[in-house]
Amino acid sequence: MGPVHATFLIAAPDQPGLVARLAGFFYDIGLNIIDASNHTDAFMDEGPRFFMRLVVDLSGLASPAAVAALGGSATRGAIEAAFRELAASLSARWSVDYSDHVPKMAILVTRDPACLYDLVLRQRAGELRCEIPLVISNHPTLEAVAESFRIPFFCIPITPETKREQERQVLHLLKRHHVDLVVLARYMQILSEQMLDEAPPVINIHHGFLPAFQGAKPYHQAHARGVKLIGATAHYATRDLDQGPIIEQDVARVNHQMGPEEMTRMGRDVERLVLSRAVRAHLERRVIVEGRRTVVF
Amino acid sequence: MGPVHATFLIAAPDQPGLVARLAGFFYDIGLNIIDASNHTDAFMDEGPRFFMRLVVDLSGLASPAAVAALGGSATRGAIEAAFRELAASLSARWSVDYSDHVPKMAILVTRDPACLYDLVLRQRAGELRCEIPLVISNHPTLEAVAESFRIPFFCIPITPETKREQERQVLHLLKRHHVDLVVLARYMQILSEQMLDEAPPVINIHHGFLPAFQGAKPYHQAHARGVKLIGATAHYATRDLDQGPIIEQDVARVNHQMGPEEMTRMGRDVERLVLSRAVRAHLERRVIVEGRRTVVF
Amino acid sequence: MGPVHATFLIAAPDQPGLVARLAGFFYDIGLNIIDASNHTDAFMDEGPRFFMRLVVDLSGLASPAAVAALGGSATRGAIEAAFRELAASLSARWSVDYSDHVPKMAILVTRDPACLYDLVLRQRAGELRCEIPLVISNHPTLEAVAESFRIPFFCIPITPETKREQERQVLHLLKRHHVDLVVLARYMQILSEQMLDEAPPVINIHHGFLPAFQGAKPYHQAHARGVKLIGATAHYATRDLDQGPIIEQDVARVNHQMGPEEMTRMGRDVERLVLSRAVRAHLERRVIVEGRRTVVF
Amino acid sequence: MGPVHATFLIAAPDQPGLVARLAGFFYDIGLNIIDASNHTDAFMDEGPRFFMRLVVDLSGLASPAAVAALGGSATRGAIEAAFRELAASLSARWSVDYSDHVPKMAILVTRDPACLYDLVLRQRAGELRCEIPLVISNHPTLEAVAESFRIPFFCIPITPETKREQERQVLHLLKRHHVDLVVLARYMQILSEQMLDEAPPVINIHHGFLPAFQGAKPYHQAHARGVKLIGATAHYATRDLDQGPIIEQDVARVNHQMGPEEMTRMGRDVERLVLSRAVRAHLERRVIVEGRRTVVF
Repeated sequence: MGPVHATFLIAAPDQPGLVARLAGFFYDIGLNIIDASNHTDAFMDEGPRFFMRLVVDLSGLASPAAVAALGGSATRGAIEAAFRELAASLSARWSVDYSDHVPKMAILVTRDPACLYDLVLRQRAGELRCEIPLVISNHPTLEAVAESFRIPFFCIPITPETKREQERQVLHLLKRHHVDLVVLARYMQILSEQMLDEAPPVINIHHGFLPAFQGAKPYHQAHARGVKLIGATAHYATRDLDQGPIIEQDVARVNHQMGPEEMTRMGRDVERLVLSRAVRAHLERRVIVEGRRTVVF
Repeated sequence: MGPVHATFLIAAPDQPGLVARLAGFFYDIGLNIIDASNHTDAFMDEGPRFFMRLVVDLSGLASPAAVAALGGSATRGAIEAAFRELAASLSARWSVDYSDHVPKMAILVTRDPACLYDLVLRQRAGELRCEIPLVISNHPTLEAVAESFRIPFFCIPITPETKREQERQVLHLLKRHHVDLVVLARYMQILSEQMLDEAPPVINIHHGFLPAFQGAKPYHQAHARGVKLIGATAHYATRDLDQGPIIEQDVARVNHQMGPEEMTRMGRDVERLVLSRAVRAHLERRVIVEGRRTVVF
Repeated sequence: MGPVHATFLIAAPDQPGLVARLAGFFYDIGLNIIDASNHTDAFMDEGPRFFMRLVVDLSGLASPAAVAALGGSATRGAIEAAFRELAASLSARWSVDYSDHVPKMAILVTRDPACLYDLVLRQRAGELRCEIPLVISNHPTLEAVAESFRIPFFCIPITPETKREQERQVLHLLKRHHVDLVVLARYMQILSEQMLDEAPPVINIHHGFLPAFQGAKPYHQAHARGVKLIGATAHYATRDLDQGPIIEQDVARVNHQMGPEEMTRMGRDVERLVLSRAVRAHLERRVIVEGRRTVVF
Repeated sequence: MGPVHATFLIAAPDQPGLVARLAGFFYDIGLNIIDASNHTDAFMDEGPRFFMRLVVDLSGLASPAAVAALGGSATRGAIEAAFRELAASLSARWSVDYSDHVPKMAILVTRDPACLYDLVLRQRAGELRCEIPLVISNHPTLEAVAESFRIPFFCIPITPETKREQERQVLHLLKRHHVDLVVLARYMQILSEQMLDEAPPVINIHHGFLPAFQGAKPYHQAHARGVKLIGATAHYATRDLDQGPIIEQDVARVNHQMGPEEMTRMGRDVERLVLSRAVRAHLERRVIVEGRRTVVF
């Protein structure tokens, strides 16, 4: 297992002394910084903005220094309370995540097994640090795949009339299983705004290179347009369809010899890679969302 | 120099025996095929379509067999006349180009020297088989660059009022210098439909990954959207702005650390490569345009 | 199913009229050419060499013309006999493959499931046109994976003393199952020369970018050397270890932040893609081997 | 111009509190950290090692706080003296560079103009923050290119007998012009160990994908081997030829259709991009050399 780490993500208006004050906060408690990355974006409309990711080793919590610095009780709660004060004084948004908390990821699918297999196999290979408590689908097709990995599979069909009710059931499942992250792995349904408001963060893979070819059958559009590259985009799902903050993108070269089917096949490879990289970045707490953009450390 | 070659480009409705009949045509005359590529696109709306590129060695023209097969006079004109008949029987569009005809390429620029330098240096290095008889600009900025390579530079400023007149002058220059190809190397003007109708083929570089981010300042758009890739597209200029047949595209990875300026710099590198590859493909007669698409052999 | 196709692969010394004579051969029998690619390599030590891939539609075999042209019996055997004569007159090496013959592919593995899953899932998705009659391993680890796809799994352990005997058993299995292609999907054994001589074609994935970092632990070597790219190479296994003809290669960017483990993970993604592309090219009869090189149409 | 910055590069054995102590050093003086990156490499033979790049704004030097903290005189010398003490206590190697010091870069060439043009044009476009006080060659070929940019050109031919003497003259020129960086832009000579010992840092572009195909004519080797990718490597020149720390690498896809010449042409494009990226990283003080490896922030 190794020692427990805490990962802090911070976003704040840029101001002098930020690195020193944030690093100093942990130094004073006696917690060692294992990894630190920061970035200042000078091109934001509302003025320069500072982003930081800090990973600290919690072993130091056991030291008398930590106890003293945190007012007598060196708990996670005490760190968070102290950091909350610092963050407030910096007008910072922040979050913290602990390495002994293994996130639970629900995978939503329809009929295409490619991304489902890819995510599960990577999780099993240790590439994605998470549990997968369930797979949810609106079609029964992929039950056998989920079951072959001994992952519970829930099939909740959907029709225009039952959409609201189906989403309520899905939300119920997500809550019951304490899901931290939802991945739409070629789930061919658009989540309603209500659902997005109530669900944990949702990552979607867009089978196309956003902002190009939005909507259905992008590879057929790409073929008809004679493009020389096709791509895929992983993004957080938001109320603006296909406009959520982009986490990862990639492309593959195509040429005139490839029909829409071949492009679809190549696109599937890109989709898989892009989705797994985005999920991995999220699970490793390397993503900060800022408006329509992301900082990916 | 080596022997003279002729390059035939053919597009026709798919039908049995096309490769054999086209190859047989040259075999019967005694002309050796040096290079042959073909492609059948099964996904066209109007039915499958066949494309072929054939490079033949004209040395064989001197043989008695050629003379006999071509009715007594083995000239290029006689080959073309015979091929025209064959093509008509196949409902084929076609063109032919001879390797001892060195195409003349005009470069249109505004202020940015990057693509201009790149094209001229590649031509000097033997990568682009063409002459560059002139550079035309709507600004005086790049005169020294053109002159340093001893290429005549014409500056014809443009205003909304003088656009039609300016284009007339540009067209006059293109004709006077027998220009075969016009390259818009970051020429910051939109050519009018009349101009496009009268000009030789025009290749444009779009500083963005079409069909994404059409219009102005694409790198600023890309930065604001937080994309993870930026790209460039070289296409034939047509009446539909930014909708002409795509010849080549490529991308570069970007990340949150890069501001619009850095993206612009990286984009410039992609633009240069993409434009030169497209121009090279055109000059080597490897491009067949079919509607909004291209076949690039 | 669609009509049956035959794919001819031809390699011959370059000579006038090759395209026309080869295409004409099928035209005269009345067989339509569906796809044709050819290439002349002018840089071979023994003089220019011509390569061609021809796909023809066998529906035409039923026509009276074919019967007449093939001397009374329009069989595959008759075509092959006639083509053999043509090939001999051109000093050509050639092979033919029929689309109603579904190749049988054996997968050899050790402990790593990534490539095995990838190949099986692509075959199931219709991307690889083959049957997988068996998986062979020198370790029991992956039995459950093979069985979950209902593919027979044979475990034949190996020690330095039993190597020859183990290979004999493997060869016996390959023959009993009529295997046409062997894929070493991270099979951590070197095949002996005798085995390679007796086995069907063998494709191997080299976890490294040949000719760099040959031998063991290439990602650790790569990390120690501080390279900025890592790659993988799929090649036919030959008596010269890691020197067989390369079919496909690709790379991924790495940086100083990545340790050997992270590089291994990224390398695994590249390996999978590269191996599946190579297998696909082989199965589609798009590869001609010529000495230490390949032509991949 | 904007305010003056100082860029500190630090390498030290990993130890608790490094980020906080280094950031705190500048915070205490009242200097704002504009940019900070750090990295811990856990895979070094001699134990984990810490690397950091810190860019600070020197405007703060004028404040009473800085004067007090630095013992009465807030000069660069005083900062360096104080930092030297801190570094010693951490067993750190370090360097500092000021943004009002514009580095002087000498370009060494032989006959190939591609990299020379590329570097000069990027410097003129503001992409490379440096002066180019001279171009040195062992051949007269590129004089006109240098002169067209009004850069002094020195031609010092070399023969096996005069190599030592020629190098002495080159070293003399480098010193006389206060050169900070030497770029071998396709300079077809191997620098002697003595020369490397006395010269400023030297960046070389290797026309091949190290560690593959070391030595002469790599593209011909690549063609003969039938590789599917070619590449280029920019590295610091050291006594071990082609073994110096790698700064940047990239590749381009090739196929069987490309002869050695076409590969050379494509390789030239990769070389140019790779070299300019490496030079840019060096000039922006983003490279820390550690043994045979580099950390490129």
